[in-house]
Amino acid sequence: MTLPKRKVCVVVASRANYARVKSVLAAIEAHPDLELQLIAGASLVLERFGNAVDVMAMDGFIPDATIRFIIEGETPVTMAKSTGLALLELPTVFELLQPDVVVTVADRFETIATAIAAAYMNIPVAHTQGGEVSGSIDESVRHAVTKLAHLHFPATELSARRVIGMGEDASTVFNLGCPSIDLVASADMGLRRDTLAHFGGTGSRIDTDLPFVLMMQHPVTTEYGKGLEQINATIQAVTKIGLQALVFWPNVDAGSEQVAKGLRVFRETGEASGFHFFRNLPPEIFVKLMAHCACIVGNSSAALREGAFLGTPAVTVGTRQQNRERGANVIEAVHDAGEIADAIQRQIEHGPYERNTMFGDGTAGERIAQVLAVERPAIQKKLNLAGLGLELKTA
Amino acid sequence: MTLPKRKVCVVVASRANYARVKSVLAAIEAHPDLELQLIAGASLVLERFGNAVDVMAMDGFIPDATIRFIIEGETPVTMAKSTGLALLELPTVFELLQPDVVVTVADRFETIATAIAAAYMNIPVAHTQGGEVSGSIDESVRHAVTKLAHLHFPATELSARRVIGMGEDASTVFNLGCPSIDLVASADMGLRRDTLAHFGGTGSRIDTDLPFVLMMQHPVTTEYGKGLEQINATIQAVTKIGLQALVFWPNVDAGSEQVAKGLRVFRETGEASGFHFFRNLPPEIFVKLMAHCACIVGNSSAALREGAFLGTPAVTVGTRQQNRERGANVIEAVHDAGEIADAIQRQIEHGPYERNTMFGDGTAGERIAQVLAVERPAIQKKLNLAGLGLELKTA
Amino acid sequence: MTLPKRKVCVVVASRANYARVKSVLAAIEAHPDLELQLIAGASLVLERFGNAVDVMAMDGFIPDATIRFIIEGETPVTMAKSTGLALLELPTVFELLQPDVVVTVADRFETIATAIAAAYMNIPVAHTQGGEVSGSIDESVRHAVTKLAHLHFPATELSARRVIGMGEDASTVFNLGCPSIDLVASADMGLRRDTLAHFGGTGSRIDTDLPFVLMMQHPVTTEYGKGLEQINATIQAVTKIGLQALVFWPNVDAGSEQVAKGLRVFRETGEASGFHFFRNLPPEIFVKLMAHCACIVGNSSAALREGAFLGTPAVTVGTRQQNRERGANVIEAVHDAGEIADAIQRQIEHGPYERNTMFGDGTAGERIAQVLAVERPAIQKKLNLAGLGLELKTA
Amino acid sequence: MTLPKRKVCVVVASRANYARVKSVLAAIEAHPDLELQLIAGASLVLERFGNAVDVMAMDGFIPDATIRFIIEGETPVTMAKSTGLALLELPTVFELLQPDVVVTVADRFETIATAIAAAYMNIPVAHTQGGEVSGSIDESVRHAVTKLAHLHFPATELSARRVIGMGEDASTVFNLGCPSIDLVASADMGLRRDTLAHFGGTGSRIDTDLPFVLMMQHPVTTEYGKGLEQINATIQAVTKIGLQALVFWPNVDAGSEQVAKGLRVFRETGEASGFHFFRNLPPEIFVKLMAHCACIVGNSSAALREGAFLGTPAVTVGTRQQNRERGANVIEAVHDAGEIADAIQRQIEHGPYERNTMFGDGTAGERIAQVLAVERPAIQKKLNLAGLGLELKTA
Repeated sequence: MTLPKRKVCVVVASRANYARVKSVLAAIEAHPDLELQLIAGASLVLERFGNAVDVMAMDGFIPDATIRFIIEGETPVTMAKSTGLALLELPTVFELLQPDVVVTVADRFETIATAIAAAYMNIPVAHTQGGEVSGSIDESVRHAVTKLAHLHFPATELSARRVIGMGEDASTVFNLGCPSIDLVASADMGLRRDTLAHFGGTGSRIDTDLPFVLMMQHPVTTEYGKGLEQINATIQAVTKIGLQALVFWPNVDAGSEQVAKGLRVFRETGEASGFHFFRNLPPEIFVKLMAHCACIVGNSSAALREGAFLGTPAVTVGTRQQNRERGANVIEAVHDAGEIADAIQRQIEHGPYERNTMFGDGTAGERIAQVLAVERPAIQKKLNLAGLGLELKTA
Repeated sequence: MTLPKRKVCVVVASRANYARVKSVLAAIEAHPDLELQLIAGASLVLERFGNAVDVMAMDGFIPDATIRFIIEGETPVTMAKSTGLALLELPTVFELLQPDVVVTVADRFETIATAIAAAYMNIPVAHTQGGEVSGSIDESVRHAVTKLAHLHFPATELSARRVIGMGEDASTVFNLGCPSIDLVASADMGLRRDTLAHFGGTGSRIDTDLPFVLMMQHPVTTEYGKGLEQINATIQAVTKIGLQALVFWPNVDAGSEQVAKGLRVFRETGEASGFHFFRNLPPEIFVKLMAHCACIVGNSSAALREGAFLGTPAVTVGTRQQNRERGANVIEAVHDAGEIADAIQRQIEHGPYERNTMFGDGTAGERIAQVLAVERPAIQKKLNLAGLGLELKTA
Repeated sequence: MTLPKRKVCVVVASRANYARVKSVLAAIEAHPDLELQLIAGASLVLERFGNAVDVMAMDGFIPDATIRFIIEGETPVTMAKSTGLALLELPTVFELLQPDVVVTVADRFETIATAIAAAYMNIPVAHTQGGEVSGSIDESVRHAVTKLAHLHFPATELSARRVIGMGEDASTVFNLGCPSIDLVASADMGLRRDTLAHFGGTGSRIDTDLPFVLMMQHPVTTEYGKGLEQINATIQAVTKIGLQALVFWPNVDAGSEQVAKGLRVFRETGEASGFHFFRNLPPEIFVKLMAHCACIVGNSSAALREGAFLGTPAVTVGTRQQNRERGANVIEAVHDAGEIADAIQRQIEHGPYERNTMFGDGTAGERIAQVLAVERPAIQKKLNLAGLGLELKTA
Repeated sequence: MTLPKRKVCVVVASRANYARVKSVLAAIEAHPDLELQLIAGASLVLERFGNAVDVMAMDGFIPDATIRFIIEGETPVTMAKSTGLALLELPTVFELLQPDVVVTVADRFETIATAIAAAYMNIPVAHTQGGEVSGSIDESVRHAVTKLAHLHFPATELSARRVIGMGEDASTVFNLGCPSIDLVASADMGLRRDTLAHFGGTGSRIDTDLPFVLMMQHPVTTEYGKGLEQINATIQAVTKIGLQALVFWPNVDAGSEQVAKGLRVFRETGEASGFHFFRNLPPEIFVKLMAHCACIVGNSSAALREGAFLGTPAVTVGTRQQNRERGANVIEAVHDAGEIADAIQRQIEHGPYERNTMFGDGTAGERIAQVLAVERPAIQKKLNLAGLGLELKTA
């Protein structure tokens, strides 16, 4: 007699999060005791964000359900409301798919919507990338999700200790590295001159045999209203450096339109010579570009995370990644064109850094799948601050 | 020149939470530097739950906005979806009222919806009753709200230490006691024989000059599906005791209908002689009943919280209040009619307990209002686990 | 080679609508070229309304999807919002089930939500009971649904002519009678003294061998706020008559709570001797009661529709059924206890009326299924007022 | 003693509908007995659609409330769901503003959401542009809104007769012309060479002293999936003609992304020499362009409506405007580049047409405001097909 497979439902809702969970998807699908259920949503299924669901499908991951819950506007109001709409959609799908465990990734509004929906429905929640610190609303959301989750897959040892420090039971915390590093570790790093041509985009053609800069800057929700000046400082800095530049459009967070406007005006006024703009790329191609670029600039966590493993020279601008764990490859800069340009210049002169495996060694996906196959966490969570000297004075 | 008043928006969404925040509402209204904005929602505005908004209005608190977001069904699915609907409604109202700070109470689904809406909208969140532990989904939700909140008003010293232990900055944590105790401390405890007659309800008439039991039992969402047998055990126990009993209908959580069904069948089959059923009472009247009852039985936190101050003999059934801080007045029992009856019997024989001010001394409301008037927490939160030995190994 | 079956999706969302479409469900299921897809929602899946979905399941109709979209409150605001919530839920299910045609019943808010969702998704909409006239918001909604529907199954010849008169193409309008009459025509009308005992309810026991009155009164949304006085007039009238009475709780429309309050107060103050209250009954049992009662009073369309076939003496109170086609069995009364009582008295004295088949002869379900199997209406509708002399002056 | 002003709430939700109702807004504001309440929503408040709300504000119309309900995706599913989200938002605002009458414009999904919300809330609904016929889902939605509306302001005599023919009471139908013609009639038609420069846009600079073509093509929801090939045929045709071209991005209907993709690819592949792209223009500027262009091509109703008054040579492509009333200035073409190009060529050769006032003479706004000030339609609608010989056979 064979047991039914344990149904693991993964909610993937942005191009970034697909890269962060792809190796887990593959490992779940390959595991004899697990059945993968895949929900695609949010910017992953939007043409405007490059319809990354198609990239995912080409990798063989076809969603069991597609949900659409982004309310247009990209303001703080719509961000809150989109969370609400996700919370109306997800329970319908969970009720249908009847998962045994739900996996939620990182720190986005769909992440907390997923965690709340599953938690209220008494479905165990597994969370990746808990315990990290950063700026933006992501910081709060990430830790709130930790408090709702039943299994934790933090990416680093420090993050694991933080998750436990916040009161999670150590037996539910698994430091197995970040699945995003699996993808980096297994990727072919060869970059042919014509690779990019397949993926469209707009603007000047980039010759990847010559030095180029990667630029990826998202809005900071807690600094809503400053997105335009922030992107303009980075644009000026990169322009000043004078190298070719590959630019990615911002994510769907509140303030995105302000960042996009800066890029759009820059492009449409004809000053963006030497710049090429992408909505989306398959994660493996993006990783190649990170491996080959002279410097990555902006505020994406990829600069810290994948960048550590790849040794990519990185300039992190503003507060979005503040306090986040990082290797030696990262220099910080405030939103000042001169300071950013100086930092990029220093990084270009430095060149690639040594590999740092602090975020994982490339084996996270399989090990996470194995934990999902065997662990049965209690649905009733209990705050565990024992050992911290806090419970002593209970009268 | 006078500064504009600081707008403090309080979301009140159940009869229970009104009692928990009433003294804060009064103190905000009385404070020269504060302007009260009041949002009423959820079960507070439903006839089926006694339309407690009318009680609130009689106290002089008229809502600036009324929102309706309870999706009928009282299942885990509708509980998750009602959270989502609240998240669609609240930003509309926040955008209109433009509050400077939002106050969210305790640990319900409207509590987390309020916290998420305000946090994404960059409005500081003040949270009461953080750091407590319990059973049900409330346990997870309460701590998740703590991670989203910018100001914390835990009710006890231990809770305050837990909030700090979870990584909140100690300068944002104020242990001023629980506002629900303010109401108890200031209430007139006289109970005239005809007091209850004004408030309707159904069933046998209760003579409050004779001994009576209070019964209030809510569903445990993490044990969804067991509500009927759980209430039946309590009904049997109270029936066995043979005293008069005042019974309150359950709250709106998932499983409520199962608990209600047990009460309804009991009442409609004509066995409920000596039982009287209430949908709702003004908090001051409820407190009088707690002060005069022979024993309170069920799983309401009031038995622990207000009960500690009043010295009310209490029997707490099941896991809903597990691990929650309490005084000597509480005995626990599992869902077994015999065990519950024995515990009630012991409490009746013991009689009233000494006053315990662990949850506050009756001055919380004014002190919370004063903190709201002067504190300006940073909108960008930062996890603070320093001092716990966790950050040492960051390398 | 066999063709795939045509998928017919029926949305059933209240106890009343189940009775109105049950024979169609059976006929679709029996048809060799059709596949039945069943969506249950709204009050059909609510315990408070008797959980009619269980009755449906006992008949062998298991929903493919259950959706919950009733926002509690029963005010004009929640009625509008529940329509909106249904419009968020239904497309998710339609996208999953991929129906070839959607059947929507009568004139409720779920009816128009179903029609809008399907129409925007380019799924043909089939509508039953179009072309009837009445009071309440149902009147407007019914005709709006006609303008969105691609196939029309009006219940009478006059209704069919009205649908065509409103500009629908005559080739899409099928006057096959009302499916609710199928159920009446095929039901066993035997009523044993102990039949009702199986179905619970509350209040006095009714002896169906003695004369009894049926009472079913819903709120009139366009007269919101008058529900309490309206039900009280009917209660007084029935009390005055002095027969036993079987009372049904009102539907979920705006104002329902006001009607329910009248019934509740009447019951709880102990004056309802001789009255028995039901939340729900299987349609076949309800029909038996209609066949045997001395008179049906209130404002349900059943008094006109099933009542015509059964010859049930009926008193229709107020405007909810104004102008609706009816047979000789119906007397109208305004909301005045004396006038209602007089009308009931006259009906009791008259006794049963002759059968009138104006609403159908019991063969509607099968014929509707056959039309659904063969008709392929154009998805692009075109207003057709030709023949009415209106288009002559174009140019 | 003065009476309170009658509150007229107008919901404006797209750039097109603003032009269609602007003169009504002005007339309401100027009327001594009326108070204007303005709700802005949908694409009107989206940067991606040119943030037309700013244009409206420059005209002095500041919204009392802004609502956001467009769910991203532009598929049939999101179109249905956006209707639902609008139905969740609008009642909140109506409850706040307490309007005496609500004005809803034309035939869009926000139009029907507005009508349903107000109708369920017992607020009289006034509808403009009822009774017109066309293709796309607009055709069905327009007539459904008529069945929900209490006051009708059709734009032409034929439309008025159609509204009455569908069963509306003639005393509620006012043929006063279309407010969009008011704007045309009062606009200064002078077009200076530098006018366009103020309004941005992208692509080649257009010299309006030389001949140019206007191109505005929206998706046809009932032909979802064909948008790309449809726009490509038009692009090819316009390219073949060889004149300068001003292109407008499509509206937010299902399939919009497909139309936009055709334009985007055309622009980004560098073939769009001589083409300039606009997201939005103030309606007065758009009218100037219509008055001066050599031909307007696409499927906008403006070509028929404003075009009739202006005598603009127009080529209407595909089914979106099928059967809609029009003057002599319109030639139809199917989605074939050759046929479209031939038609454009014929229109260029013909040149401007005579003024046709079939859609109004420029006085609609004031007259509509006056009707809104004095009419008090019954909230309970009644189908009125009398006089059509339909009611004769009622047995």
